[in-house]
Amino acid sequence: MKIGFVGLGIMGSAMAANLQKAGYQLAIWNRAPEKCAPLVAGGATQVSSPRAVAESSEVVISMMSNPAAVAAVRDGDNGIIAGLATGAGYIDMSTVDVQTTQLSARLAKTRGALFLEAPVAGSRKPAEDGTLTIMAAGDRLLYDTVLPLFNRMGKKVLFAGEAGSAARMKLANNLVMGGMLVAFCEGMALAAKVGLDLAQFQEVLDAGAMSNPMFRTKGSMIAQQGDFPVAFPLKHMQKDLRLALQLAEDAGLPLFTTATVNELFKKALAAGLGDSDFAAISRVIGG
Amino acid sequence: MKIGFVGLGIMGSAMAANLQKAGYQLAIWNRAPEKCAPLVAGGATQVSSPRAVAESSEVVISMMSNPAAVAAVRDGDNGIIAGLATGAGYIDMSTVDVQTTQLSARLAKTRGALFLEAPVAGSRKPAEDGTLTIMAAGDRLLYDTVLPLFNRMGKKVLFAGEAGSAARMKLANNLVMGGMLVAFCEGMALAAKVGLDLAQFQEVLDAGAMSNPMFRTKGSMIAQQGDFPVAFPLKHMQKDLRLALQLAEDAGLPLFTTATVNELFKKALAAGLGDSDFAAISRVIGG
Amino acid sequence: MKIGFVGLGIMGSAMAANLQKAGYQLAIWNRAPEKCAPLVAGGATQVSSPRAVAESSEVVISMMSNPAAVAAVRDGDNGIIAGLATGAGYIDMSTVDVQTTQLSARLAKTRGALFLEAPVAGSRKPAEDGTLTIMAAGDRLLYDTVLPLFNRMGKKVLFAGEAGSAARMKLANNLVMGGMLVAFCEGMALAAKVGLDLAQFQEVLDAGAMSNPMFRTKGSMIAQQGDFPVAFPLKHMQKDLRLALQLAEDAGLPLFTTATVNELFKKALAAGLGDSDFAAISRVIGG
Amino acid sequence: MKIGFVGLGIMGSAMAANLQKAGYQLAIWNRAPEKCAPLVAGGATQVSSPRAVAESSEVVISMMSNPAAVAAVRDGDNGIIAGLATGAGYIDMSTVDVQTTQLSARLAKTRGALFLEAPVAGSRKPAEDGTLTIMAAGDRLLYDTVLPLFNRMGKKVLFAGEAGSAARMKLANNLVMGGMLVAFCEGMALAAKVGLDLAQFQEVLDAGAMSNPMFRTKGSMIAQQGDFPVAFPLKHMQKDLRLALQLAEDAGLPLFTTATVNELFKKALAAGLGDSDFAAISRVIGG
Repeated sequence: MKIGFVGLGIMGSAMAANLQKAGYQLAIWNRAPEKCAPLVAGGATQVSSPRAVAESSEVVISMMSNPAAVAAVRDGDNGIIAGLATGAGYIDMSTVDVQTTQLSARLAKTRGALFLEAPVAGSRKPAEDGTLTIMAAGDRLLYDTVLPLFNRMGKKVLFAGEAGSAARMKLANNLVMGGMLVAFCEGMALAAKVGLDLAQFQEVLDAGAMSNPMFRTKGSMIAQQGDFPVAFPLKHMQKDLRLALQLAEDAGLPLFTTATVNELFKKALAAGLGDSDFAAISRVIGG
Repeated sequence: MKIGFVGLGIMGSAMAANLQKAGYQLAIWNRAPEKCAPLVAGGATQVSSPRAVAESSEVVISMMSNPAAVAAVRDGDNGIIAGLATGAGYIDMSTVDVQTTQLSARLAKTRGALFLEAPVAGSRKPAEDGTLTIMAAGDRLLYDTVLPLFNRMGKKVLFAGEAGSAARMKLANNLVMGGMLVAFCEGMALAAKVGLDLAQFQEVLDAGAMSNPMFRTKGSMIAQQGDFPVAFPLKHMQKDLRLALQLAEDAGLPLFTTATVNELFKKALAAGLGDSDFAAISRVIGG
Repeated sequence: MKIGFVGLGIMGSAMAANLQKAGYQLAIWNRAPEKCAPLVAGGATQVSSPRAVAESSEVVISMMSNPAAVAAVRDGDNGIIAGLATGAGYIDMSTVDVQTTQLSARLAKTRGALFLEAPVAGSRKPAEDGTLTIMAAGDRLLYDTVLPLFNRMGKKVLFAGEAGSAARMKLANNLVMGGMLVAFCEGMALAAKVGLDLAQFQEVLDAGAMSNPMFRTKGSMIAQQGDFPVAFPLKHMQKDLRLALQLAEDAGLPLFTTATVNELFKKALAAGLGDSDFAAISRVIGG
Repeated sequence: MKIGFVGLGIMGSAMAANLQKAGYQLAIWNRAPEKCAPLVAGGATQVSSPRAVAESSEVVISMMSNPAAVAAVRDGDNGIIAGLATGAGYIDMSTVDVQTTQLSARLAKTRGALFLEAPVAGSRKPAEDGTLTIMAAGDRLLYDTVLPLFNRMGKKVLFAGEAGSAARMKLANNLVMGGMLVAFCEGMALAAKVGLDLAQFQEVLDAGAMSNPMFRTKGSMIAQQGDFPVAFPLKHMQKDLRLALQLAEDAGLPLFTTATVNELFKKALAAGLGDSDFAAISRVIGG
């Protein structure tokens, strides 16, 4: 199977590398072309447009940072849609809103192509390790065909139904993640402010029912308030919270805590932390 | 060592039972005397007042539900303090505010007794299994003496410094727990509202960096919205959030998200859910 | 001057009536045509489309309830834009987001027409009394021409600059209104809950620096919790809060309190109060 | 009638001066004795303790900044209670919690004295002008006797029932005031951030149903973000919000918006703005 890959940021380049490692032949494109170098060195073919990627592939995967970026590589004369052959597969693994993914599905259909949305949970490390969680939805036939690909990129792969379902699941997932990290940060801020040993506090959290990898991974960088090397950019988390709140609003669901969490992330954005890891939210808590 | 135990609620009776199982001889008292029966059947001596417990013991432990209940068994002619011998140990394992625990420490000192506060993390199941997390603070000498007792009740035991430090740590711990559960509930509410498969959603959460025992334990009861058999009463969580916010306020620390979480718990109390498990907070989310 | 008027809801019909009373000849259109009757009885000409309104007028005014409704009467073969003559004036008095109003301005320009956005502050009563506050922005020349019209509909009229400025001002205005009403309702809820005389409480508020017409107008309906006859529909306030929060987000401004106020309005919408007056927000406070 | 006055801060000294102007003979005490000078120059007698004030007066008024300060002048050998004669009147005009005022009432009763709580709405200017709102509660007989005094200090005076009712009313009043000012500040912050003319924005607010003296008084200092000359100290507003939230919690009433407003005031306190006017809350909004 010839695979195309569009979007080689932190996540995309790691995911594409795992496909390459598994022996798949890749056609690739990225807006900043220099990001293609490592994959080209590994045997991938760098082409001149998202359309060219689609024209070279049976299945084209995109991994972009937001809805506008998805549209930018999808639409227009040089876009993926323009290059899709009848019966080809288009898989968008970006985290976007439901409207965006449903539009992608419709556009693929106009070309006689199949579509999957397949947003992932997990950031840099799981992307590199091939241990992402992949939530797919859309054309079941395509899902069954590309499952081997997904199994190279993720360790938990599921099919959630019609296009849009995976976007909703991803947003609900990230809503929990944002709120959970803020709960952790507010506890850490209180512990620090009243003079507790933060390492001991983290041990307590880790000994009980709340024990989880995220607190372990982010805990020391939050305690030290030094750099926040980016695994998942804060600005992407804020985007996801915004999309989740919009989804909730459309569904008639008030979410008081998430709304407050979103304001904290907006505050962090305003403080210039958008490109830091989302754990940098701790910088604006208690400040 | 003769041990006294005052306060035989959900937590206290399980903790005392673990001491009894380990062979310790117990003198016990509870406001509702019928709760003493199982321990008496196991060989404990039921006495007529908290003071009598202290008079019969080298080390007396209390496990009460709030600061007022601690004061009720501690103070006055029939209180623990009145019965403490010089050199005896008084360990309050209740979750209370810093002022309450520091007063307990001073009162013990007036009797020439030693004091530890030792609030625990973990609810009914860990209490029964002897796998609580125990945060002790106060007189180090007493800590070293009673560590074997703590090791019967808990699997993670630590010494946090002077009296008050453990209360602070416990409150910070429960602040994280309350916020984390609300984040989970808001995500579950959104998932349900937009028609996702809740079991699949929980699998996604459990496959990634947020995976933790609390979500696994509470998830199905939140998904089903049936009964919420009580492991940790909702009213106690709200009390802890209030105390944590007071501690933060005293320390000059605003905590926007925790304040909102606290209002949700207050709303649940107003809805009559105080004696349900704290996972019943899900009933008032999105309502 | 021949005037067109599109959109005859609560606000639009009162505003158009004031123009008619002042002697202006009106061409009118409304989606529900029966709403045109009173104005037709007063001499207005009912035409068959928004486009026909524009074709019959030197200046066409629209007063719609949200951005989608503005687009519906503005765009397409039967829309206002299609009927605008070179040099004609198009005034949209709806409360919409900045993007919508800027698009309206660009579309008018493609026809060689002039454009003003002119959202208003004030609800049914000021609309009927001609005492609205009118915030206009866009083409200054058109503003100077239509000032006499504005002075029939409002008592405070101002020019805020380029198109978009008035939309922004209106959103900031309504943000304050929503938050201020919620502050009032939370105070009233507390007063009621602790057994105070609500009439006396309102007198206290009215005697001091907070004294304002809104509290006087809404106070008794909030105290009685009976019907909430609609002056400004709750769903429109929630829409404005959403647009205001979006504007703030685009500008990098976190607004913690407004975000919480917005969730309360979303909760009221979910409770079926969208078509009640926005004072019905009191129904979901403390509930 | 011989009047005593204890507590000569911003409010107390202005209120006492109005009594002096009306011809009343005053016995006075203040913790910082130099604050007594202006009143002494006007004929008042400075005495050595709150008790001495009570011993010299038929009616003693106290005006303190918080519950602890009320207790400090009320209790002990040198306190007001110790100096009250049978049948004398004790009026505490401080804003305190319900428990504090009810204790004051009980203590006065033990001396055979009458008690009124009489918190006021209004800050420096209304205190100076004798235009405060005075909410009295407690012994009706004393109220009828001292009404002429109240009419010198306030223009709106009311009797709210048994001791505690006025405290509750004052807290509900200040809850509205805090929330309303924050709503105004968030609107102003948005207006400023998107480039609107703030003077024009204030005109818009003042032209409609929200028009109120507080926005007019605080508006220009908020727009300029310069000094915030203190009329009502921010730290007192935060205290009142805390007490109001506690009152609501005791009554089983969740107040989501007020809780968020309170966190903003706590943030302002942490930023060192406690002694500025409460309008300085604008400094931490959008920051």
